[in-house]
Amino acid sequence: MLVFILNAGSSSLKYQLMNPVIKKVFAQGICERIGIDGVLKHEFGEKELELKIEMPTHKEAIEAVLSTLTVGEGKVIDSVNDIEAIGHRAVHGGEEFSGSVMVTDQVIETMKRLIPLAPLHNPANILGMEICQELMPGKPNVAVFDTAFHQTMPDYAYMYALPYDQYTKHGIRKYGFHGTSHYFVSNEARGMLDKKHNTRIIVCHLGNGSSVSAVLDGKCIDTSMGLTPVQGLMMGTRAGDVGAGALQYMMSQENMTIDDALNVMNKKSGILGISGKSSDLREVLEGMSNGDERCRLAVDMVAYNIKKYVGAYVAALDGVDALCFTGGIGENAALIREKVCAGLDSMGLVLDPVKNNKRAKTARDISTNGSASRILVIPTNEEYVIANDTYKVVTGTK
Amino acid sequence: MLVFILNAGSSSLKYQLMNPVIKKVFAQGICERIGIDGVLKHEFGEKELELKIEMPTHKEAIEAVLSTLTVGEGKVIDSVNDIEAIGHRAVHGGEEFSGSVMVTDQVIETMKRLIPLAPLHNPANILGMEICQELMPGKPNVAVFDTAFHQTMPDYAYMYALPYDQYTKHGIRKYGFHGTSHYFVSNEARGMLDKKHNTRIIVCHLGNGSSVSAVLDGKCIDTSMGLTPVQGLMMGTRAGDVGAGALQYMMSQENMTIDDALNVMNKKSGILGISGKSSDLREVLEGMSNGDERCRLAVDMVAYNIKKYVGAYVAALDGVDALCFTGGIGENAALIREKVCAGLDSMGLVLDPVKNNKRAKTARDISTNGSASRILVIPTNEEYVIANDTYKVVTGTK
Repeated sequence: MLVFILNAGSSSLKYQLMNPVIKKVFAQGICERIGIDGVLKHEFGEKELELKIEMPTHKEAIEAVLSTLTVGEGKVIDSVNDIEAIGHRAVHGGEEFSGSVMVTDQVIETMKRLIPLAPLHNPANILGMEICQELMPGKPNVAVFDTAFHQTMPDYAYMYALPYDQYTKHGIRKYGFHGTSHYFVSNEARGMLDKKHNTRIIVCHLGNGSSVSAVLDGKCIDTSMGLTPVQGLMMGTRAGDVGAGALQYMMSQENMTIDDALNVMNKKSGILGISGKSSDLREVLEGMSNGDERCRLAVDMVAYNIKKYVGAYVAALDGVDALCFTGGIGENAALIREKVCAGLDSMGLVLDPVKNNKRAKTARDISTNGSASRILVIPTNEEYVIANDTYKVVTGTK
Repeated sequence: MLVFILNAGSSSLKYQLMNPVIKKVFAQGICERIGIDGVLKHEFGEKELELKIEMPTHKEAIEAVLSTLTVGEGKVIDSVNDIEAIGHRAVHGGEEFSGSVMVTDQVIETMKRLIPLAPLHNPANILGMEICQELMPGKPNVAVFDTAFHQTMPDYAYMYALPYDQYTKHGIRKYGFHGTSHYFVSNEARGMLDKKHNTRIIVCHLGNGSSVSAVLDGKCIDTSMGLTPVQGLMMGTRAGDVGAGALQYMMSQENMTIDDALNVMNKKSGILGISGKSSDLREVLEGMSNGDERCRLAVDMVAYNIKKYVGAYVAALDGVDALCFTGGIGENAALIREKVCAGLDSMGLVLDPVKNNKRAKTARDISTNGSASRILVIPTNEEYVIANDTYKVVTGTK
């Protein structure tokens, strides 16, 4: 089944054309600067195109992608009709969606109702769905939610200790994000374990956005992000966990509104805020090796925050069978993995420094042979999850 | 040395008269409703007095205490002159105080400068010091800070991942509280261990306010409270950790200012907010046993939050030698200890249910004989720490 995967953001749009049954990617790319001018970067086979195309709205962007896929130098299919289904990354499914669903008017209505929970993401996701319905009438559209995998969390894990009616009136609770990645990686890890029952897996998804999840027998029981993605780990530009008293104090000292403060916490904090140099960990690791003290602090904080979540989730899971690293940082930053795992021996997690420092693009075990539990690096594949869920929803195998 | 211990709050004032050298308490009590009318509850030996005395300000309250100690039915000393030193509980010492100090004009100036960090507590503490200087001229006053014990935290533990200048300009970082209790209990625990080096101790101070600390070789390396006490564990009425996005969302849905929101998070959240019944865990435990679902949720959340901090700090300490419970809940709520320890076996912490359910007022080990690490219940004694620090500062033995 040929699936067109769409990840529509507020001013950009990622796509992939994939057959999930044979795990083959035909093309992928990104539209940027939508609403400004418009650039389309298109990869197919080993080749790459960069096209300047006017994209006043998301509609022209999707039209440009479909045209590039079917006509001219970047062509990989004969006709848009070859696309059999469209899989949409959808950010916030609230408590309404605990799995992927066929896009119907009612699904779109529900997603609109959830816009206050994800004011930047859900509108773009909905727009992507509506445009695909218009441009490819009759083709099935499937919504794959970032929050769905975390819907199995028990109440004592997802509730904030705010007055209870904040939950009943406004849905204020932890939802968690990066669900497709946490699902994919924990599922791969289960396949790599000898045991098949009571599998206790911790996934550290470490990219520009980062989160940790605890997965028991394939079901998420806790995750570090909250109602929104600003909570949990320190990230590229997001602060992660900050006390409400500190937030109030910053606002009063700086004469900020809460929206100003959240803007700082989302865009000017994290690795960028501490290092003062970059939100890109690679540049900050380089700064550290050149003796920059604030880069050293940023790196230590990143690793220490992850380590504490790992410990918390080992406690929540009553032990751990596999600790998994994924995402750009998780897959590539050996030093971060080393710092996270230093001191986890008492939990049965012993890193092999030689294996840890070997670079590879495949899933691998980087723990010592004697380590009671496994430490794994598993490249994530969120697009595959979206394509495969789309296949399963459309064919009714899910 | 006879030490008068003063814990001055905004509308109440606790005191104790103690000789820390022989660990003897002569009297203790509390002044309440200062500025309204005034009640003095005074305990001495096995006896108790309750006196109605007009207390328009803290000055009249302290005068009433000194008079009660020296004249009439509650008399325990002949004269105020018998008091050799005054030990003051002081809440916020910022980064300026990493230990207890003699109160000087400069110390009071520094505490005044720190008022923005503790706007309710520091002014009352300062007032207590100034009144004692006036009423007992020439007697040494010592300030014992709630934050001091936590000043040994490494930077990667105390920094928030906000823009770095929020720290340099405004001192925004984690400070931690309940320091005298964490110091006392971790120190007692060290005495109960066979090993004397690399002692890794976790203290759960669980009262109406609650915090956890990780103590390596007698030095605090992390704690759950932050710039203010609202962060960390779920407490009687405090929310503990809540994502900034959730806070922003609550404010927008409820049309709250940040001060409104913090008021809710300090006074209407936590055990009270979830249960809707009481901030007193005993009542909520009772509600749970009567089948109240929100009481069950509150209890599960309390225990789960503590458990996750314990796991995080086992990771931070690279193992644990003793997990200690103290404070009203920690010393008395066997069910909470049981729920916290359930699932910590993989970390070497195995609770003995029989020992756990025995009630006692002394320090005790409630882990199984085979448990690799100890689980301890240790009654806290913050007043003793204040009195003993006062003794050590005054005699120059510290």
